Amino acid sequence: MLKNPATKYRPFAAVPLTDRQWPSRSITRPPIWMSTDLRDGNQALIEPMSPEKKLRFFEMLVKIGIKEIEVGFPSASQTDFDFVRMLVEENRIPEDVTIIVLTQARDELIRRTVESAVGAKRAIVHVYNSVAPVFRRVVFNMERDEIVQIAVKGTQLIKELVAQHPQTQWGLEYSPESFSTTELDFSKQIVDAVSSVWQPTPQNPMIVNLPSTVEASTPNVYADQIEWMCRHLERRESLVISVHPHNDRGTAVAAAELAVMAGADRVEGCLFGNGERTGNVDLVTLAMNLYTQGIAPGLDFSDIDAVRQLVEECNQLPVHPRHPYAGDLVFTAFSGSHQDAIKKGFAKQDKDGIWEVPYLPIDPADLGRSYDAVIRVNSQSGKGGMAYLLAQEYGLELPRRLQIEFSRAVQRMADETGREVAAASIHALFSQEYLEQDTPYDYVSHRMVEDSAHGVQIDLNVARHHVPQALHGEGNGPIDAFVNALGLDIRVMDYHEHAIGRGADARAACYVELRVGSGQTLFGVGIDSNIVTASFRAVLSAVNRHMAAAGAGEAAIAA
Amino acid sequence: MLKNPATKYRPFAAVPLTDRQWPSRSITRPPIWMSTDLRDGNQALIEPMSPEKKLRFFEMLVKIGIKEIEVGFPSASQTDFDFVRMLVEENRIPEDVTIIVLTQARDELIRRTVESAVGAKRAIVHVYNSVAPVFRRVVFNMERDEIVQIAVKGTQLIKELVAQHPQTQWGLEYSPESFSTTELDFSKQIVDAVSSVWQPTPQNPMIVNLPSTVEASTPNVYADQIEWMCRHLERRESLVISVHPHNDRGTAVAAAELAVMAGADRVEGCLFGNGERTGNVDLVTLAMNLYTQGIAPGLDFSDIDAVRQLVEECNQLPVHPRHPYAGDLVFTAFSGSHQDAIKKGFAKQDKDGIWEVPYLPIDPADLGRSYDAVIRVNSQSGKGGMAYLLAQEYGLELPRRLQIEFSRAVQRMADETGREVAAASIHALFSQEYLEQDTPYDYVSHRMVEDSAHGVQIDLNVARHHVPQALHGEGNGPIDAFVNALGLDIRVMDYHEHAIGRGADARAACYVELRVGSGQTLFGVGIDSNIVTASFRAVLSAVNRHMAAAGAGEAAIAA
Repeated sequence: MLKNPATKYRPFAAVPLTDRQWPSRSITRPPIWMSTDLRDGNQALIEPMSPEKKLRFFEMLVKIGIKEIEVGFPSASQTDFDFVRMLVEENRIPEDVTIIVLTQARDELIRRTVESAVGAKRAIVHVYNSVAPVFRRVVFNMERDEIVQIAVKGTQLIKELVAQHPQTQWGLEYSPESFSTTELDFSKQIVDAVSSVWQPTPQNPMIVNLPSTVEASTPNVYADQIEWMCRHLERRESLVISVHPHNDRGTAVAAAELAVMAGADRVEGCLFGNGERTGNVDLVTLAMNLYTQGIAPGLDFSDIDAVRQLVEECNQLPVHPRHPYAGDLVFTAFSGSHQDAIKKGFAKQDKDGIWEVPYLPIDPADLGRSYDAVIRVNSQSGKGGMAYLLAQEYGLELPRRLQIEFSRAVQRMADETGREVAAASIHALFSQEYLEQDTPYDYVSHRMVEDSAHGVQIDLNVARHHVPQALHGEGNGPIDAFVNALGLDIRVMDYHEHAIGRGADARAACYVELRVGSGQTLFGVGIDSNIVTASFRAVLSAVNRHMAAAGAGEAAIAA
Repeated sequence: MLKNPATKYRPFAAVPLTDRQWPSRSITRPPIWMSTDLRDGNQALIEPMSPEKKLRFFEMLVKIGIKEIEVGFPSASQTDFDFVRMLVEENRIPEDVTIIVLTQARDELIRRTVESAVGAKRAIVHVYNSVAPVFRRVVFNMERDEIVQIAVKGTQLIKELVAQHPQTQWGLEYSPESFSTTELDFSKQIVDAVSSVWQPTPQNPMIVNLPSTVEASTPNVYADQIEWMCRHLERRESLVISVHPHNDRGTAVAAAELAVMAGADRVEGCLFGNGERTGNVDLVTLAMNLYTQGIAPGLDFSDIDAVRQLVEECNQLPVHPRHPYAGDLVFTAFSGSHQDAIKKGFAKQDKDGIWEVPYLPIDPADLGRSYDAVIRVNSQSGKGGMAYLLAQEYGLELPRRLQIEFSRAVQRMADETGREVAAASIHALFSQEYLEQDTPYDYVSHRMVEDSAHGVQIDLNVARHHVPQALHGEGNGPIDAFVNALGLDIRVMDYHEHAIGRGADARAACYVELRVGSGQTLFGVGIDSNIVTASFRAVLSAVNRHMAAAGAGEAAIAA
């Protein structure tokens, strides 16, 4: 049993705000979006992005419409420094985009950071130091005034350094790190001290970023904190109030939304909520939440699958199947009553009218997703998801690209039979589509001699249109020799094989991705108790499938 | 670009509540928890749970401490009906646990539903009908009064039917489905009508569940709706107000928390946020959010990995690496400054004092997770996550169990070198651990004759302690023949093989899980241009690794 937490954890203190205004407000325009995918997001990856990936990510952020992009922590990493220089020197930052470079408030780090951005048209130096009691006591062993001095001196140095590079339009962002767990009066004190050095104006405002470095309270308390700051900070008219919510309690999206209601002008986050630990707030969800309220977010997620694909590739982290707007399952209805209601909703939906389809908070088409995906293989009454089914029930572990290829066949079958695909039918369909492909080529037998010194020689018997053929081939491995024996213009592009079952009864399933001529690749599957024979069957399966699809004679793929 | 949404979507209407109380409240005790994993969660799975899985899930929910469990939709599915009967007839429902059975408000479905639960000590019939304008107009084509009559008649029938089975202590739960997008006055009208039929008392209250069937507003609006209902419903003292938030806008956790502040007594959700589309609210996050505020949630997640494992297995859906409290990455610090602060925090943490470690909102030990996991392979300065690294840079796709096995070696290396593991080191370690295992057995060459009719004959040359050995074996496939030729007491338990690279230069990587004698299994890996040779190398790799680990002579595994 969990220990009694009352002795170990304490409740979050309420904010002294009795006349709060934010609960009566609503959001009527989007905040300024700041992406920290390339900084906070990147530093929290198991495998940080390569420069090539960072550039692709940067260009996608620009394309989506993000105007403020934190591009790295140049003083902490040579890779980040070089990346910023590359953006500047290769003129890769569009006119209307501002880059942000993060630094701790330490002299040598600040110098290096300013250096990284020199020559950019516009750049914001983002300086931070930790201000919460636990940091002051446990990490730094410093009093409040010493902490203030760190921020003030850092700001003075930045002001001095950037004055030497007037060709760049410089801005300042200051973050009192761990703001959300800091006494409000101290946060005010340190921010006021920084702004009194920087001397922002309404025309050249300073960004004050108030992070929930660790999310530590219900989101209404964070909104109270933001409203308190907005009402108490000096020079408010010359400040852009920014929030940077983390998701430790699973409420980062709410915290950002309530904070904007409480007066925040700007939100920092990552696409699909990447970032330290539980992640930063998800900018995609925030933007689409505005969109579904009739407010143009200024960000373009009309091809959300493409965005998701690039982010997954760069971050090497999945977007969860239930992730709002982007997950695989969020436009899927499994229950019959939901499906019926959605069907009626679509039928009565006025093309130019207000969107009103039950159970669908947004038109999937607005995200580039299609209604085909909304109702797919129904599983409520014993029907099954194909990949799970084939893996669980039949021990077949389809490679991902084969899953995608096969899903089209399942979808066709679902459409033909009125969207009802029984579990057994999926395996039958898989067998029919891949395993029972025996025309024109059918495997009969083979005799193979392998010799470590001289490679593989194979004598192969196949049936071609039911006519026996004896073939001979040589190669550096069984598949190579087999392909040579067939004498067709085919190349094996990918190959997976695994055991089904264990011990003496085990068989091997082999998946081969084949390119025929210069055409599209396609898969073949073979199952046999012999791993070599399974691979031969897989190659023939792919060849036969190609011919069936092309409706072609063998001439089409003759070598 | 996204279309201008103002013509297609409209802002959510504010709630007429100017003197709201909830923003000044905080949560001081846990709500009643209701798990709908076996109903809402299960119906949204690609592959619904088997009865065996449902039972394991039910028993885990009981063990965690959930006292109200929705066990199915018995009138919609024979599987669900049979499952409820099994729970009742086999006496599987503990004294202090109440089961809930869901039904639409239709006569024949209600009859079937009551029938399913007869004989239970306690059971709640949960009846619902959709009340939102879009449902009334588009789906049912009914006026308000007709919709009220559906709920009233359903309640009357339930009251009549349960009176015939006094051995069960019956309760009623009523859900105006799509409450959150319904006019508040109409929700009040229909709930009041139902409660006037049921006649609840403070001793025998009725549950009024107010779902955000589709999440359609910021969470403060939902809280306003709940507070409005709590203040306007008749017979409030005889009602248990329940919420059922979905996560379409990513704010279900916040919605539940603010709703509890607004007066809700009970929360329905699923573990890790399973459920229709974007899921139901996550009960784990809600409970642990309370825990970190010093409030005992009444639920036991002290072995969260075990809970997660069972849920992932039953749902066949992953828990995201950044999922609060449970994700793989949430107790991981990659950045050096975070690691330093955490280290200082742990050093100064008083064993019996208030928890105060920077960046860690909860002691991982409270969830059964360990500090070892907190700082692992550091990747901020060019170090890499092993599985990603080996796949991305070397094309090696390790089976999951092998990843786990190998991670121990990486961890050992990280510990020895002060947690610094360079990217190249991981591949070097993998090679050393699996590929360069050539003692006592080293593959030299083989000659194999395969014949479809008579199986495989192999003449094998290996070196044993550098002494050449000529062996002969037969079998129904190459691996079988090879194992027989070796003459050791080993069994191949699992086998994966895939191509590295494409075309003529492609090689095969083979992963073999081997059981030696009756001991624990272990892996071997072989790489070769020939798929058969790769598998032989993999078997020898595993044999050699076993002997090295056991420090054993060959006698230990002689057949």
